[in-house]
Amino acid sequence: MEKPKELGITVSKDKDFSEWYTQVVQKAELADYSPVKGFMVIKPNAYYIWESIQNYFNQRLQKLKVRNAYFPLLIPESFFKKESEHAKGFTPEVAWIENKNDTGEKLAIRPTSETIIYDSYSNWIRSWRDLPLRINQWCNVVRWETKTTRLFLRTREFLWQEGHCVYETKEDCDKETLIYLEEYEKLCKELLAIPVIKGKKTEKEKFAGALYTTTIESLMPDGRSLQCGTSHNLGQDFAKSFKINFLGRNEKPTIPWQNSWGISTRLIGALTMIHGDNKGLVLPPKVAFNKIVIIPIVFDKDKELTIKKAKEIYQLLKSFNPIMDDRDNYSAGWKFNEWELKGIPLRIEIGPRDIKEKQVIIVRRDTNKKEAVKLNKINQKVKKLLDEMQNDMYIKAKKFLDSSIILVKNITEFNKAIENKKIVAAYHCQDLKCEDSLKNKINGIKAICIPLNKAKKNEKCILCDKTQSMIIYFAKSY
Amino acid sequence: MEKPKELGITVSKDKDFSEWYTQVVQKAELADYSPVKGFMVIKPNAYYIWESIQNYFNQRLQKLKVRNAYFPLLIPESFFKKESEHAKGFTPEVAWIENKNDTGEKLAIRPTSETIIYDSYSNWIRSWRDLPLRINQWCNVVRWETKTTRLFLRTREFLWQEGHCVYETKEDCDKETLIYLEEYEKLCKELLAIPVIKGKKTEKEKFAGALYTTTIESLMPDGRSLQCGTSHNLGQDFAKSFKINFLGRNEKPTIPWQNSWGISTRLIGALTMIHGDNKGLVLPPKVAFNKIVIIPIVFDKDKELTIKKAKEIYQLLKSFNPIMDDRDNYSAGWKFNEWELKGIPLRIEIGPRDIKEKQVIIVRRDTNKKEAVKLNKINQKVKKLLDEMQNDMYIKAKKFLDSSIILVKNITEFNKAIENKKIVAAYHCQDLKCEDSLKNKINGIKAICIPLNKAKKNEKCILCDKTQSMIIYFAKSY
Repeated sequence: MEKPKELGITVSKDKDFSEWYTQVVQKAELADYSPVKGFMVIKPNAYYIWESIQNYFNQRLQKLKVRNAYFPLLIPESFFKKESEHAKGFTPEVAWIENKNDTGEKLAIRPTSETIIYDSYSNWIRSWRDLPLRINQWCNVVRWETKTTRLFLRTREFLWQEGHCVYETKEDCDKETLIYLEEYEKLCKELLAIPVIKGKKTEKEKFAGALYTTTIESLMPDGRSLQCGTSHNLGQDFAKSFKINFLGRNEKPTIPWQNSWGISTRLIGALTMIHGDNKGLVLPPKVAFNKIVIIPIVFDKDKELTIKKAKEIYQLLKSFNPIMDDRDNYSAGWKFNEWELKGIPLRIEIGPRDIKEKQVIIVRRDTNKKEAVKLNKINQKVKKLLDEMQNDMYIKAKKFLDSSIILVKNITEFNKAIENKKIVAAYHCQDLKCEDSLKNKINGIKAICIPLNKAKKNEKCILCDKTQSMIIYFAKSY
Repeated sequence: MEKPKELGITVSKDKDFSEWYTQVVQKAELADYSPVKGFMVIKPNAYYIWESIQNYFNQRLQKLKVRNAYFPLLIPESFFKKESEHAKGFTPEVAWIENKNDTGEKLAIRPTSETIIYDSYSNWIRSWRDLPLRINQWCNVVRWETKTTRLFLRTREFLWQEGHCVYETKEDCDKETLIYLEEYEKLCKELLAIPVIKGKKTEKEKFAGALYTTTIESLMPDGRSLQCGTSHNLGQDFAKSFKINFLGRNEKPTIPWQNSWGISTRLIGALTMIHGDNKGLVLPPKVAFNKIVIIPIVFDKDKELTIKKAKEIYQLLKSFNPIMDDRDNYSAGWKFNEWELKGIPLRIEIGPRDIKEKQVIIVRRDTNKKEAVKLNKINQKVKKLLDEMQNDMYIKAKKFLDSSIILVKNITEFNKAIENKKIVAAYHCQDLKCEDSLKNKINGIKAICIPLNKAKKNEKCILCDKTQSMIIYFAKSY
């Protein structure tokens, strides 16, 4: 709809990553700033990515016997206060409304829905037969951030899903908390071509009110880590605060275990940063609304025939939702740039010479590789190229991530690795004080996660003298 | 999840419709009241209906080249004031938040999004080539109703879709405004088995800020009409207020034409009222999450075999997402009642005698008709029964609607028809004063619509002496 004011991205991804990102998001028509400070408009190209995430994940949820529902936007103040850690964590960024509840109580716009949902659960759950209870909701949330807005990454409103399950035992809860994390990993890999690290948050970084938080993290090209999704084992504290209990198999009142887990429109930001290049957006084919753009290469004398052939190809490839760009007020070169900017996976060119040869030229957005393809093979070839592109994008991103995790032995190495935009792996005693002092020593870093499936080792903490420490990943982060 | 406190609906649909409705919604686990007054919890059974509506309508939208997007939840006060009729209509029910925009301006939670969307459009639209622009959003809206809450019908928050299109000419806008209305009619018919009347709102009842409003209306069994969806031709007033203009084909700055159109979770209320009966909810098969419940009729000696056979049938019918109710702490009768209450379209019973006969008993929820079906025909028979049920439910509702529209000649007949819970068709001069005085004369009624495709006739207005009047439909309404 909107024509970019200047064609193309005016800075390079390497040199000014932040400006590059903002330009790509706006010029590829993913999102725009809104007149309400800190809020964004999600434009159709990006909303389609979100719908693809929803469709993919809803299918998984059905398999996992999770059902979708919808709870109120507003939350009474007293609900927030019921779980004290949760209240402490969220109160600073809550937006309150002027209208009051009929009790005279203040109402907040949900920053997350644990409290309003668990109030319902306390009415719904009576017996062990009601468990496990597995509910998910897709909705908007508001967190009144005071830092500068970054489209998709930090806005005062975003879209997300939040799953909220209740179990009879800690074992069930532990197990499924991990299952949802693994689903997130799979979604990132299969749909968005984003590789992630699975880990556990340190005590300092865990969700406000959780027993523990598991997380998937990915590294952005500027050396900052991005939290892509979290799954929290909430223990029994919310259940106690909201008086959720059930008659157990032993006929005794029992307090259940709960988890909550979420991913958000932030993933669209991750995808943009990881895959984009100096020409603009590169869309993983699975989340591209238009998977192809067809551009007839028109010369005056063959114009009619070329357009006619291009239209035939359009019909042939209809299932890939192609764009037919036969505008005559733009040059072919201008069109190439525009659709590259917008990240369309494949460009198909057809000119008089191709018509003679019964072929088209197909160009892949990610590699810029050109290939002549015979018309009678076009459908299967397009399918194959899209699959290969999806796959190659993941492999490339995975190589980047794997090569960006550096094990360090001392603070000098630590500093150097951070300067080099790496994720730093270091043995650490997991003591909160030691985590704090490391954070103070090295500007802007934090513990992003304790990678899963690594045991304690008899190694010294990077900062103190304690042994029996664990690998923790540190990085600058979003 | 929640067990009904008392089994079944305790009042009859005829005798206490309002209480009947509240019980069905809660006991069939469609929705529940929330601790936030006027807000509701949409439970999984109802949310599935909403998702079915979304899936159906998104497919239609793709055909109509409408794209989904997402705009901010909050709207600056000055935006509301830009279109004066719109402001007058919505200001009384707007919820404001305490946090201010960076300009110091007050922010409202969207009651509808014309203003925030059209501000974006003013930046997006430059040339006739950008038109038509067709965008839809699925979201929550808040309207601070002061009347009593009725789940799905009148709540302070509801879910809806709002489409917002921009056109070069009035003709294009008129044409598509009607197309969306027709899509709504089709959705109600094909998916929800709800017959509607298509019409135009009177000047008094049109949308605040619209040139005209078209509507689909249906009659509820208590004689009150329910607005099921609207499509507004907004004319050029919003465009003028928000400075949306484009360079026309004639190279001159031109003001475009706009429409907006919406349907909401209110449709779930309509479906419940129209199809439900004294046993509870009756779900049109297309929107039933579980289309079948399988109940093994167990006697002690054949228990194992019966359960085994029931499980085989469960596997056979997996694509219909059946419920297998082999709980042994409830009687078969109790189970029949529970699943009838929840509106499951087909009940399959299998007992020792059926096993011998290689058959099952299938019972339709809407007619209670029982049928023995041979096991080797079960899949095709289930499909056929579901299709027939969907169809029959529409036909039954259509007959009710058609027989409920009564043409009256004078006020006595008018009053009598309203008493008899009808929609009253009357010739009317369309004068606002005359509409007002009719409203005053007959308590609780309003003009629900001017049915489409009826011409002016040389008939006298039912109230005044003017001739050249139109048929208008009047009724009590939600």
